[in-house]
Amino acid sequence: MTVLLEKDIRAAIAEAARRVRAETPMAPSITNTVTISFVANAQLAAGGSAAMVYLPDEGVAMTRAAGAFYINAGTFFPFYAEALPATARELHALGKPWVLDPVGIGIGNMRTDVLASFRKTPPTIVRCNASEIIALAGLWGLNTGSLVASRVKGVDSFDSIEDALPSAISVARYSRGTVAVSGATDLVTDGKTTVRCPGGSKRLSLVTGGGCSLGGVMAVYACVATPFVAALAATSLYNLASVRAAATTDGPGTFAARFLDELYKALPDEIAAQPFNVEECQ
Amino acid sequence: MTVLLEKDIRAAIAEAARRVRAETPMAPSITNTVTISFVANAQLAAGGSAAMVYLPDEGVAMTRAAGAFYINAGTFFPFYAEALPATARELHALGKPWVLDPVGIGIGNMRTDVLASFRKTPPTIVRCNASEIIALAGLWGLNTGSLVASRVKGVDSFDSIEDALPSAISVARYSRGTVAVSGATDLVTDGKTTVRCPGGSKRLSLVTGGGCSLGGVMAVYACVATPFVAALAATSLYNLASVRAAATTDGPGTFAARFLDELYKALPDEIAAQPFNVEECQ
Amino acid sequence: MTVLLEKDIRAAIAEAARRVRAETPMAPSITNTVTISFVANAQLAAGGSAAMVYLPDEGVAMTRAAGAFYINAGTFFPFYAEALPATARELHALGKPWVLDPVGIGIGNMRTDVLASFRKTPPTIVRCNASEIIALAGLWGLNTGSLVASRVKGVDSFDSIEDALPSAISVARYSRGTVAVSGATDLVTDGKTTVRCPGGSKRLSLVTGGGCSLGGVMAVYACVATPFVAALAATSLYNLASVRAAATTDGPGTFAARFLDELYKALPDEIAAQPFNVEECQ
Repeated sequence: MTVLLEKDIRAAIAEAARRVRAETPMAPSITNTVTISFVANAQLAAGGSAAMVYLPDEGVAMTRAAGAFYINAGTFFPFYAEALPATARELHALGKPWVLDPVGIGIGNMRTDVLASFRKTPPTIVRCNASEIIALAGLWGLNTGSLVASRVKGVDSFDSIEDALPSAISVARYSRGTVAVSGATDLVTDGKTTVRCPGGSKRLSLVTGGGCSLGGVMAVYACVATPFVAALAATSLYNLASVRAAATTDGPGTFAARFLDELYKALPDEIAAQPFNVEECQ
Repeated sequence: MTVLLEKDIRAAIAEAARRVRAETPMAPSITNTVTISFVANAQLAAGGSAAMVYLPDEGVAMTRAAGAFYINAGTFFPFYAEALPATARELHALGKPWVLDPVGIGIGNMRTDVLASFRKTPPTIVRCNASEIIALAGLWGLNTGSLVASRVKGVDSFDSIEDALPSAISVARYSRGTVAVSGATDLVTDGKTTVRCPGGSKRLSLVTGGGCSLGGVMAVYACVATPFVAALAATSLYNLASVRAAATTDGPGTFAARFLDELYKALPDEIAAQPFNVEECQ
Repeated sequence: MTVLLEKDIRAAIAEAARRVRAETPMAPSITNTVTISFVANAQLAAGGSAAMVYLPDEGVAMTRAAGAFYINAGTFFPFYAEALPATARELHALGKPWVLDPVGIGIGNMRTDVLASFRKTPPTIVRCNASEIIALAGLWGLNTGSLVASRVKGVDSFDSIEDALPSAISVARYSRGTVAVSGATDLVTDGKTTVRCPGGSKRLSLVTGGGCSLGGVMAVYACVATPFVAALAATSLYNLASVRAAATTDGPGTFAARFLDELYKALPDEIAAQPFNVEECQ
């Protein structure tokens, strides 16, 4: 296995950020209704273009205009039983990158069935928290994970990043993609190289959609970069912008507004200079 | 009947606020798509945890993780005909507290049928405006109310708080719960004790979800306090935060952001010290 | 044909703004879930009242309380196949003004069918971008337009305002209403008089719902003014408020909050004094 070098990773992040600003890439979504507005606003602020749909034929149609796609499982509608698998199949057939946020995994039969179905057409990037990746690995029958062991309770995580690492690596290897686990320290792995990002403000967890919108911005970046670089660039951007927004605000309302401003203002070299540690996967 | 003493009420409010901050209680919702993000953000800012679902089996599943639940009738989907009654039945069977916001009562057949069905599994707290509680009392056949007499027009109120008091008391007595009627002066009653809260900024009425999010925060508080204390504590928190947010802003956009900040920053003793008057119900 | 005089137009805009503030007119919507909250907040900030529904009988019921109605095609649900045409037919039968935003025209079969069906019950105002009006004229078989020629890609425009002018005029004449095309210079035409509005901040395009909410505010104004004056007054208000909000912010998050503040604070005479040029249609 070849481990990526830190300087090459940083150069690729800066290049991805420059291309997003120059090309305004379109990353459509089927996403939840709670944070849909914040996802779109974050995608626009970060330099991309957004479009959200719900129906099966609309999801399939949008895969064509898409540089990459975002599927977020936060709120299910009855027609998602068809819309989400159909869109994933089309993305798989077209070879287009897509980001999955398996939020709420374990709640309801349809969500479980749909998330299980993605095993056949796996996402390019999974963006989630620690409990969710353990649950997803379990749902897909990868021996590192466990639907039972993980303590998914609603949408919050009750497992540590380090406990989630084996599941993150196994899902990344199975899907030949990247897994990004958000936490106090964020973890991004493609199954060969693991990067830990210690920065970011915990205030982002007081804003609904902090994680969902990160998945949307990863999809914007996945239009112009490899999944690994896209996930890491978006994570770095979020860590930078959240710290800056927290420094000038004293509560979650003005923080959220300021956070969008900082997504908009962050420079490619600043994004690429965020602290992270690179190591080879065991 | 025993009237609660003001000093005991204030102590209970402060204790509830301390527990919310310490325990981050989970109050899931089935709520409308207009204000769903603001509801979640208010619940997080106030110290709770939020999760929103739509489907029948997901509503039922979330009742188990819930300390309390929030059902808001603002926007109806076809599958709500099953989802809302099924979730209410489960909450009733589990004996878990839940908050109902009957917003839009009178619009459409399904909304009327579903709100009528709650008579059999009544909510622990009803959070509404004056016209809505008169309409709900009428819909449930309580002789103080009237679907005809109330002038529900869309989502705005056209009746006074004092005109709504008999309906509020009768619904509270029927449901053995609490009714909170929002207005220039807010009214909270459990059918024995009525509290009038004169504070708050009217600017909150220029933000969509001012009332909806109050119901969500009442559900957070209902995880750790009696329905009466939960409704009064959340109302007091809203009055405090809205006045503070209005003092530093000159329009509804920055007010909304600042309001979330103030929900986050309010101290238990400050919430408990908000002005209100206690009297025995006639 | 009689061309309206600039001074009469400006007097009518000021009068409309005064009436909106005095009467708080109710303009219900069936609108997309991405920007629904921003639409409602903009309608409230501008001085109106908002109510959003999804179901067929609720759409029809709300037409009665409505001064004017807003239908936005941004996100489709399966039940829109019935809800949108039924609401449009009721509005047509009642002779009530309504605003259509045909956002996403060309995506999916149901959206195409529903937008085509509006040919029989045409909207009073169409609010859209350049590509969308060319596509709508094509869909309705008006010879100025073309579904093929227009380059609708997701929700963004790839045609110029001037290229869209013939389609805007033909749709306005066909519907005997007004068409408002948003762009760097906005265009408002009733098929006899065309007004070009050169102002506004491009930062509004970095906020999801900038265009959608303009349609909602046009519906508020259409409760108290002619379609032409309503479309022009709302456009002028948006240009004024967006420039003011951009002057005091440096990113899209605080801009969006400040923009709502400026919608709220704008005075009738300021709205009426925004720059625009009036000319007779060819």
